[in-house]
Amino acid sequence: MTDTSLHSRSLVIDALQCSDFNRDILLEAQQGGVTAISASSVLWEGFRGGMDYVIMWKAKLAENADIAMPVRSLADIERAKAEGKVGIIFGWQNTSPVEDRLDYFGIFKDLGVNIMQLTYNTQNFFGAGYLEQTDSGLTGFGREAVDAMNTAGITIDLSHVGVQTSLDTIAHSAKPVAITHCLPRALKDVPRNKPDEVFKACAEKGGVIGTSLFAPGLAAGNDARVRDVIDAMEHTLDLVGEDHVAIGTDFNHNRARPGPWLLWANRDKGTGRTLTEFGSAKISKPEGIRSNAEFPNLTAEMQARGWSEARIEKILGGNWMRLFGETWG
Amino acid sequence: MTDTSLHSRSLVIDALQCSDFNRDILLEAQQGGVTAISASSVLWEGFRGGMDYVIMWKAKLAENADIAMPVRSLADIERAKAEGKVGIIFGWQNTSPVEDRLDYFGIFKDLGVNIMQLTYNTQNFFGAGYLEQTDSGLTGFGREAVDAMNTAGITIDLSHVGVQTSLDTIAHSAKPVAITHCLPRALKDVPRNKPDEVFKACAEKGGVIGTSLFAPGLAAGNDARVRDVIDAMEHTLDLVGEDHVAIGTDFNHNRARPGPWLLWANRDKGTGRTLTEFGSAKISKPEGIRSNAEFPNLTAEMQARGWSEARIEKILGGNWMRLFGETWG
Repeated sequence: MTDTSLHSRSLVIDALQCSDFNRDILLEAQQGGVTAISASSVLWEGFRGGMDYVIMWKAKLAENADIAMPVRSLADIERAKAEGKVGIIFGWQNTSPVEDRLDYFGIFKDLGVNIMQLTYNTQNFFGAGYLEQTDSGLTGFGREAVDAMNTAGITIDLSHVGVQTSLDTIAHSAKPVAITHCLPRALKDVPRNKPDEVFKACAEKGGVIGTSLFAPGLAAGNDARVRDVIDAMEHTLDLVGEDHVAIGTDFNHNRARPGPWLLWANRDKGTGRTLTEFGSAKISKPEGIRSNAEFPNLTAEMQARGWSEARIEKILGGNWMRLFGETWG
Repeated sequence: MTDTSLHSRSLVIDALQCSDFNRDILLEAQQGGVTAISASSVLWEGFRGGMDYVIMWKAKLAENADIAMPVRSLADIERAKAEGKVGIIFGWQNTSPVEDRLDYFGIFKDLGVNIMQLTYNTQNFFGAGYLEQTDSGLTGFGREAVDAMNTAGITIDLSHVGVQTSLDTIAHSAKPVAITHCLPRALKDVPRNKPDEVFKACAEKGGVIGTSLFAPGLAAGNDARVRDVIDAMEHTLDLVGEDHVAIGTDFNHNRARPGPWLLWANRDKGTGRTLTEFGSAKISKPEGIRSNAEFPNLTAEMQARGWSEARIEKILGGNWMRLFGETWG
């Protein structure tokens, strides 16, 4: 019988969910012992859409103040743990709300946005997403954007970013960066997964790689179970060591599949061409870890493999805490 | 003594000026026998800035209706000629007002914008400007943008666009494209000039290359005179033939140098890093062709070289008329 006290007492941080959060999802997260979640629903929005995100979360957090709270600092995550609440980190999967104005990084940081992905799936002013045929690398304005995020105290995420742009960003950034939710291409050769060289470059600069639960990116595909997620994690652990691996589930609860939000997400800039074919699977997460309530199953599988408590605590939250500490300023 | 009647009776089209137009400039153009000018002041503006451009020109054209008129069609250019007015073509040096919405191409076309440069000096969603270290080529969204401009009836300009993005755009576009104002790199190896291969590819698809008057791009630099402009034109003529060469002066009258507008123009997206060092010369156009009033000097130099009237008429306006006819739809 697994000792569940390790999960219960650990800081558990999920560095990426793009769910349309409601009270039920927050209650499941509380039940699953999740301390903090980066709620990354911004994909293509412009400046006003970025503001709408902030406004939306102010309202949701006010309505659910008994079970959730905003996270602006490491202390807030500690406080969420102490109070048994779910901390919500404001995080985005694109820099699109910044539009053409670098000063908006500081404005959005002031409003609580602590994580931004440099680009979503395609080209923006700063660099290329993983679906571009040619990767521009980090552009001139992109170098300025990285500097601005370093200065403002925003964690840079590279999960959907193209390989060359990712490598350039890691090299240029004065701070370590995150790959919040990504699987290794070494185990499943699909474009959305990243090659080992990117994971290694990220870790060598002090960055952290969050293992995602996206089943089509796992070797077992839609037949995947919890053990397959931990297999992918183990590959990354062997590659970069236990100080650089963590979790980013990519849960997207309360989003009809296919439905308006996912169809919008899957078009370039939200209204351009359709980018990828949706798989037929209605459920894209592995059996045993399909909601926040099942989070303890990840910990149990790590324990079953005989991993040390210290290692498991780093993966569950310690590594994100270190990276956020180094980047939020 | 040069026969000035050729200039007087020809359609004379300047495919690029970024002056801050006032009545004096329009009067000089009228005096210089200029039939139509593409007034391309948009560089980094967003959607509302694009609307401001349209609003600004509606007012200026209303105030100067006795000497100037808007150009929406070839017939408008013919009418400007017949009435002795200066036709103003709405043209932009960037697609930035379209922001992330391809449908805005059609909206701005409906408002009279007939020419757009795919990108100004740096990377945008569609491709790379000539100042990027790495040229992304035409992006996925860029291919959609080219299709949208083809469909809407907007002439695509590649003057400041990077070499690879230019070649990709020429190859992808269903319609011929313009390089409204550019000099040959073969005569002066500076990044803003284009290599012969781009001029050739443009012409082979039926496009037109406007020789610019930007002195630092001429072999003689700031010592250049009218003959140096015609030397550059002659290089391009030898390369692509007389059906593909025309004029785009790049006049930027009524702009303090250095002044707020040029300093803004020279920063990425208007507020980012400064992109290039300004030369020390206060006057960047060759002696003898420093204002619209001196336009006949270009024609005189062509005549002095013994070029046929048919050739000169193509260069002065006939080639732009053909290209606009093929692209405005």
